[in-house]
Amino acid sequence: MPRIGLDVMGGDKAPVEIVEGARQFLADGKAELILVGTKQALKDIDNVEKVEVNDFLPMDVRPTEVLRRKNSSMYVGLQLLKEKKIDAFVSAGNTGALFAGATFVLGRIEHVDRPALAVPVPSLKDFTILIDAGANVRVRAEHLLDFAVMGLAYAKVLGKDRAKLGLLNVGEEENKGDETTKEAYELLRTHLAENFAGNVEGHDINAGKVDVVVCDGFSGNVAMKTMEGTAKMIVTILKEQIKRSSFFAKLGALMLSRTLRKMMEKLDPRTYGGGFILGVNGLVIKAHGSSDRKAIKNALEVALKGVQMNLVEKIAGEIARVRDSGAGR
Amino acid sequence: MPRIGLDVMGGDKAPVEIVEGARQFLADGKAELILVGTKQALKDIDNVEKVEVNDFLPMDVRPTEVLRRKNSSMYVGLQLLKEKKIDAFVSAGNTGALFAGATFVLGRIEHVDRPALAVPVPSLKDFTILIDAGANVRVRAEHLLDFAVMGLAYAKVLGKDRAKLGLLNVGEEENKGDETTKEAYELLRTHLAENFAGNVEGHDINAGKVDVVVCDGFSGNVAMKTMEGTAKMIVTILKEQIKRSSFFAKLGALMLSRTLRKMMEKLDPRTYGGGFILGVNGLVIKAHGSSDRKAIKNALEVALKGVQMNLVEKIAGEIARVRDSGAGR
Repeated sequence: MPRIGLDVMGGDKAPVEIVEGARQFLADGKAELILVGTKQALKDIDNVEKVEVNDFLPMDVRPTEVLRRKNSSMYVGLQLLKEKKIDAFVSAGNTGALFAGATFVLGRIEHVDRPALAVPVPSLKDFTILIDAGANVRVRAEHLLDFAVMGLAYAKVLGKDRAKLGLLNVGEEENKGDETTKEAYELLRTHLAENFAGNVEGHDINAGKVDVVVCDGFSGNVAMKTMEGTAKMIVTILKEQIKRSSFFAKLGALMLSRTLRKMMEKLDPRTYGGGFILGVNGLVIKAHGSSDRKAIKNALEVALKGVQMNLVEKIAGEIARVRDSGAGR
Repeated sequence: MPRIGLDVMGGDKAPVEIVEGARQFLADGKAELILVGTKQALKDIDNVEKVEVNDFLPMDVRPTEVLRRKNSSMYVGLQLLKEKKIDAFVSAGNTGALFAGATFVLGRIEHVDRPALAVPVPSLKDFTILIDAGANVRVRAEHLLDFAVMGLAYAKVLGKDRAKLGLLNVGEEENKGDETTKEAYELLRTHLAENFAGNVEGHDINAGKVDVVVCDGFSGNVAMKTMEGTAKMIVTILKEQIKRSSFFAKLGALMLSRTLRKMMEKLDPRTYGGGFILGVNGLVIKAHGSSDRKAIKNALEVALKGVQMNLVEKIAGEIARVRDSGAGR
């Protein structure tokens, strides 16, 4: 049975909601869990493997702190993954720290200069993989090429053999953007011609115009969080409008409630559970910092799927294939 | 009566939809319109002042082209504004070109190093001013301070005397972001302490956590367009779900239709009509590139409001006040 490690100390709602999420996931019996946390945090859950630590990283930690705090739940979890004592590691802790820790402890996949956070976000087709969704604040053009290769490999693992790739920009035209995006445009066109569909704009992400959207971590993070904010605003306005409306409209809302619930479910960021840190030698899942029990359960499901799909090996293979075929730098 | 110039040649749907928008706006008789376009484009509208030109800028033009094409509808319109033959100028043409042209032809307001595009986007409170929404791809920290001062002045004109200001970033903590955002954080804290509420994230924009969100034009453009994409996806999913649902749910949707329509109206980017290019000596309104007649009509309403509010003079005064009080560089 797959063995998944969980950082019980990471996230705004840690440890209570993290532990609850673990409990719910365990009830399905699909995988073994290894919970990493302080004795205090782990006291309310039993019948599960525990690894006790005496340190953990606060959410506002400086990312590089993780490298010095080797007894922190995050570092210990990554170490377990490196030693193959677990098959995947999930944390809702500080993104930068998890990213730095994963890169340092696990090492990078050959040919990958910069690992990145890949998050599948909902689209009108099915989903769009956003990479980088927040790990590397600013990048060079060749890093965007790395992200593109990893994003396409991830899409392939998810069953999209001929995935279309777009470069996030401020307009569709080739001459848009700054020096980095212009240079990246050329690199992507040269090396990934079969997949590259040119520049895409913010509104194309949810439209599902392409399967993979590549960007630096700053824009990716802004895009992902803006989506959440917009969805939340719409749902809130809708609820308020219904509350204020006539008896018949309220009755209408009641009749429509199942439809509305399904829609909200699809939009809820907790549904997609988390993103993979791609490009490191190990399966690391970053759950949303504000994860509650539901989000954690879903992040564990995502981790399980990654293990079952053999994601890390497949991405390494795909990157080697693309690089060997002459693409990339 | 206020005199508003309109670039009939700008936008993906020019000239037909632009002319139709003008016609609808004229029907209300609130302002005089001066339409700038080719003879051919203006042939189907009468009883309105026309300025015929023999050149116009395509949507994928290089922004600096506007400076050389002095017979283009965009340049001619800006020139009319400079000569005070009109009180405001509206264009749905290429953002970069309109920005470059406005800066060159009209000149910058004293103390402003970089003009910027300010767009009020809907929020759970009322609206949030996003500045820069796409004019300056990358900027220095001191430009972000300029944007902040202009954004706050704009908020004041709109009735928010003690507007809260946020710096768009990838996390709330002070140490988040790249060198530019870190430096801007310090500048904003030092010079705009009364208004500055720290870093905000993508989801805070629509939540209305602050009144003004300051960012570079790349992130601002990504955020604004992502909002549109998310809203469109949600509305599309909702419609599809209703179509597929039971008779009673359909009946429910019918009863709720007025509520749904009101919500969609609020989310429709055509409703807010356009943004102001702030920091130049003249009232320039950038309408969305994909503007149809409704969006153009609303952009003209926005222009009219700007004239009535005396926006440019008020912003110049506000900036002078803030700078004289020792804030800024």
